[in-house]
Amino acid sequence: MKKYDVVVVGGGPAGVSAAISAHNTYQTKKIALIRRESISLIPCGIPYTQHSLEKVSSDTLPDALVTQKAGAELIIDDVVSKKDKVLSLASGDQVEYDKLVLATGSSPSLPPIAGADKKGVFQVVKDLEYLENLKRYRDTATNIVIIGGGYIGIELADEYLKHGKQVTIVELEDHLLPTTMDFEYGDKVQAVLEEMGAKIVLGHAVRAIEGQSMIRAITLDDDTEIPADIALICIGCKPNITLAEKFGLDYDARYGIKADEYLRSSEKDIFVIGDVAAKHDFFTGKLTDIKLASTAMAEGRLVGSNLFEVKVIRRYLGVLGSFSTKIGSIAFGVSGLTENKAKEMNLDYEVGEATTIDRHPGSFVGASPIHLKLIFARYSHVLLGAEMYGGDSVGELVNMLSVMILNKMTDMDIDTMQIGTHPLLTASPIAYPVITATVDAIGKWYREDVA
Amino acid sequence: MKKYDVVVVGGGPAGVSAAISAHNTYQTKKIALIRRESISLIPCGIPYTQHSLEKVSSDTLPDALVTQKAGAELIIDDVVSKKDKVLSLASGDQVEYDKLVLATGSSPSLPPIAGADKKGVFQVVKDLEYLENLKRYRDTATNIVIIGGGYIGIELADEYLKHGKQVTIVELEDHLLPTTMDFEYGDKVQAVLEEMGAKIVLGHAVRAIEGQSMIRAITLDDDTEIPADIALICIGCKPNITLAEKFGLDYDARYGIKADEYLRSSEKDIFVIGDVAAKHDFFTGKLTDIKLASTAMAEGRLVGSNLFEVKVIRRYLGVLGSFSTKIGSIAFGVSGLTENKAKEMNLDYEVGEATTIDRHPGSFVGASPIHLKLIFARYSHVLLGAEMYGGDSVGELVNMLSVMILNKMTDMDIDTMQIGTHPLLTASPIAYPVITATVDAIGKWYREDVA
Repeated sequence: MKKYDVVVVGGGPAGVSAAISAHNTYQTKKIALIRRESISLIPCGIPYTQHSLEKVSSDTLPDALVTQKAGAELIIDDVVSKKDKVLSLASGDQVEYDKLVLATGSSPSLPPIAGADKKGVFQVVKDLEYLENLKRYRDTATNIVIIGGGYIGIELADEYLKHGKQVTIVELEDHLLPTTMDFEYGDKVQAVLEEMGAKIVLGHAVRAIEGQSMIRAITLDDDTEIPADIALICIGCKPNITLAEKFGLDYDARYGIKADEYLRSSEKDIFVIGDVAAKHDFFTGKLTDIKLASTAMAEGRLVGSNLFEVKVIRRYLGVLGSFSTKIGSIAFGVSGLTENKAKEMNLDYEVGEATTIDRHPGSFVGASPIHLKLIFARYSHVLLGAEMYGGDSVGELVNMLSVMILNKMTDMDIDTMQIGTHPLLTASPIAYPVITATVDAIGKWYREDVA
Repeated sequence: MKKYDVVVVGGGPAGVSAAISAHNTYQTKKIALIRRESISLIPCGIPYTQHSLEKVSSDTLPDALVTQKAGAELIIDDVVSKKDKVLSLASGDQVEYDKLVLATGSSPSLPPIAGADKKGVFQVVKDLEYLENLKRYRDTATNIVIIGGGYIGIELADEYLKHGKQVTIVELEDHLLPTTMDFEYGDKVQAVLEEMGAKIVLGHAVRAIEGQSMIRAITLDDDTEIPADIALICIGCKPNITLAEKFGLDYDARYGIKADEYLRSSEKDIFVIGDVAAKHDFFTGKLTDIKLASTAMAEGRLVGSNLFEVKVIRRYLGVLGSFSTKIGSIAFGVSGLTENKAKEMNLDYEVGEATTIDRHPGSFVGASPIHLKLIFARYSHVLLGAEMYGGDSVGELVNMLSVMILNKMTDMDIDTMQIGTHPLLTASPIAYPVITATVDAIGKWYREDVA
């Protein structure tokens, strides 16, 4: 029987970052990472295996991160049971741990749609061979129907459109990205996709998948039939809680394994991170469905450095929810609260908005319009959320706004803040969107005071 | 005699933003902006009038910002004197104010170089006709010598190289950007410019400008002669303090008009902002030479909203110094302390570094290498500075790091921070440079603890 100081189960971003962090923090500890898959994929790159990346295998998370950067032993095997601190693996091997980190991830949810077992029906499974098979189907497919208009759905649509396919998205709600962005942003995504040739069906459910053994079409709840050579179900995912059940850990079937703010499970010396760990919202403290690789890795780093003693300052503050994506040539980003969520929570808030160009003067080649919406708390004037679309700079702009929200910056803090601007890189200082949107909100308050 | 509640003198970014901010804050106040130039230019766009922008006039700061966005009267005139609260203008007009904002800017410094009055010798003057004349000289010039390897110098070099000119930069110090970035970054700028065909002369002064009435060459302090059809002197600038002298305000000839932390001058009801206002360093509190449009505008917004009563929270924290630029296809950025400055100040610091690719997987078209260096205080673990180069995303990345420094985030705060990542927009979450460089610094501390 092999014995390790730290055993990580799961080879996705959470597990890998926990192993690296553990190695950085505790140089002398012996670490092993056990994963099921012979090859581990970069989850957020998966949509891009369908067009932008020539090979699915280009989206691989290198094993060297585990074996070299984390100095860990990589074990390709499956954990089947545990007794005290000894894990039994599918191969018959046994592994003893001092500290165990569960990072077993999530799997795509399957809705009760008749005919979902037909050939040509896919989900976004984090498996190389599965995705290579999907890519072979893509080669001969004409019509691709994507069920679910969340991030994965719109990113796959973007890829298949760029590959020249006929793409239809079917979304149950009345807007794309209905839970993560405000309606006007979902509608902007829709406009971009439609301009690329997509058909967007909103406010309808898929009732059945038609065809013999092979998909031929899908049928909506109003009996409309849409031809389909591939149906891709992207309606979210559920935590892989099998081991939690077997180990007797506290868990919630929808949200995942329960953990304290240091991500310790109900059993001593077992930590849980990533999609399998139940997460709390940064603002409400309530359990949340948001699952992101970047959050998973923040958790991995937190746990990796707290394994043998908790460094108190490293508290887990809950999921802020910082997303970015790119559809066509437009990048979208959101961090923190949307206006929809603020309404849902009955918050007293003010909105500031800005529309500008991300270079100055705006006549520069490559300049792109940018739109930013900020949500401030009305009483404390603290920044609660940001949504935006624009050029590629949105990718870091959304992170800048995340830092502002995490630091509870107020409108006044932002207004007097110093930022760097450059003609070839950013909006003009006089039109810098973060400042302009903040000034817009401040102006509304001043006018209220006068009124 | 006309009478206004607020009179702003100077039509650059500082003056314009003060006028806009005053109008947003005090809706009913009557505002005038007096400036000398018939057309106001965007200062940071000036280098780009020499190649990237077809016309110099594309770099204009629109008057509508004054007349519409700030609802102010625009007066093209020159202030010559003041008695009590009445300004006398060159035209003979008189203007009475309640609150006066001086934003008279800076002018390029002229070093004592023999022959600097010859034709073909230019400075970076913020004047449309002057710059159009420079552009006409450019059309027939073959050899252009730039004296001074700071930001303006390297940006002009980049422009003239792109325009097919023979460009030489002469810099007195041993590295480009000697005062604002660490040597390895100045050296990287040098490598990029040399690859574009520039000749870089370091560690030498220009002794004389040769030729009859027209420039023919420049001579260095070691008698080397470099042929030149244009010499562009870019060695920094000095505050325009003429009015301060006339008005009897406290000032420092090198740093500018003295002001308190709300940017009030030594005379009641006179505020000073932008390049003409003496500035203090964010870290040391000492007077600093850093003059930036973005800082000027932060000051303009601060003063504009504090004119009739100071809103105490809006303190001016001193100049952080957030720069970005782009040379060739590489963007450079810096915020806060460099390692050179930390050494100069005898600070106890630790460095964290990261080198990665700004897309993931790195095989994406348009992906660019990125390098980041962070400076942390050793005892408090607070982030003090950041330097970087990479793709265009550096433009917002440097602002994100400015926000972190302004908020005094520690290595631990950053390590557990949540950021959004996306294959087409950012580095991979496992290689995100801000986290990786922070983890690098943390790792050094852990290893010290063990040792």
